[in-house]
Amino acid sequence: MHVAVIGANGGIGRELLPRLADAGHDPIGVVRDESQFDEIRERGGEPRLGDLEGEFESALEDADAVVFTAGSGGDTDWGKTLLIDLWGARRVIDACLERGIDRFVMISAYRASEPLGDPEAMRPYWVAKRCADDFLEASALDATILRPTALTDDEGTGRVSASFEYDGEGGGDIPRADVGQAVVTALETDETIGETIRLFGGDTAIEDAVRPER
Amino acid sequence: MHVAVIGANGGIGRELLPRLADAGHDPIGVVRDESQFDEIRERGGEPRLGDLEGEFESALEDADAVVFTAGSGGDTDWGKTLLIDLWGARRVIDACLERGIDRFVMISAYRASEPLGDPEAMRPYWVAKRCADDFLEASALDATILRPTALTDDEGTGRVSASFEYDGEGGGDIPRADVGQAVVTALETDETIGETIRLFGGDTAIEDAVRPER
Repeated sequence: MHVAVIGANGGIGRELLPRLADAGHDPIGVVRDESQFDEIRERGGEPRLGDLEGEFESALEDADAVVFTAGSGGDTDWGKTLLIDLWGARRVIDACLERGIDRFVMISAYRASEPLGDPEAMRPYWVAKRCADDFLEASALDATILRPTALTDDEGTGRVSASFEYDGEGGGDIPRADVGQAVVTALETDETIGETIRLFGGDTAIEDAVRPER
Repeated sequence: MHVAVIGANGGIGRELLPRLADAGHDPIGVVRDESQFDEIRERGGEPRLGDLEGEFESALEDADAVVFTAGSGGDTDWGKTLLIDLWGARRVIDACLERGIDRFVMISAYRASEPLGDPEAMRPYWVAKRCADDFLEASALDATILRPTALTDDEGTGRVSASFEYDGEGGGDIPRADVGQAVVTALETDETIGETIRLFGGDTAIEDAVRPER
């Protein structure tokens, strides 16, 4: 599968690219700056330029699936959160619809289920993530929404805990590496289409955890 | 009609309350602070407390229609725009759905049709307004979305220009008083249900301007 990763140079994107390549896929690393191209290549991806506030559509050429893991980050104001995390996501979703790219995995956040939760300082972020998720969910795309709890840079374990319902309690921190692996597994597992999956650190093999019980 | 005005003490809300009362309706002025109650009463409204980041649902009791004209304004950061203009609006829409309050008028903004337009500094605001509008439009409510261009405090003229399509060109500034009158007319005109109406200063009587040609 040609998988375009939007935000390929972010914390999860960097873990995701080599895992996609190892699984036999062809990752496309979409970044804002050519200076990041070498790093994308080193991680097994084909680098392409894309600017979520400008032109990014050409970076989606030939993609069979898109993973959205871009975010304006903590060093910019909430205006950038509106423009990147929310509007950028909506633009990518619309571009997928226009181009017939059906498969989409969104990296969201645990509290997107309840944006007025605590800590209060994070609420605007959760509003933006939730609104992007809802737009995706209401679209005609084959979407999987992943909502990890707090992220760490620990080594991946290949094991997580997952929940298909929101209970407000959350769970342990999760390594970005395991979120990246969960994206690969989600893309390869059709039962995850239409699901919103909360991810925590845990002891279940990822391929079992992300599969909803029927 | 009992009309709950969310943001009753804002620029458009203050123009709207007496016009609703003059037209024979019963306006409910929803504000955050009891110190604003007298002013709401002077404008012909029944004051009620409501906090868009907390509890506001009881302020909707007995309402037949809701007008959303709340906004965090220009003195707070974009985080408040996410919490009030976007998430607050979504919460009010959800509360209307739960309570069977079918009629909803949203005060939006001209550039919500094209959030990446100019000036660049306003883009996050237009993203928030657009996302709230889209959530309303996709809901089961009988909604009218009004998208005025730049607002002034000039006296109302009773005349505007309106457009049912976005052409990117916009039109002249419009007094808040005329937007208030357009809300009253929209509430009384079932043909405006399901419409997104761009409003500018102009020469057409409001009751003619907001009626789509069939």
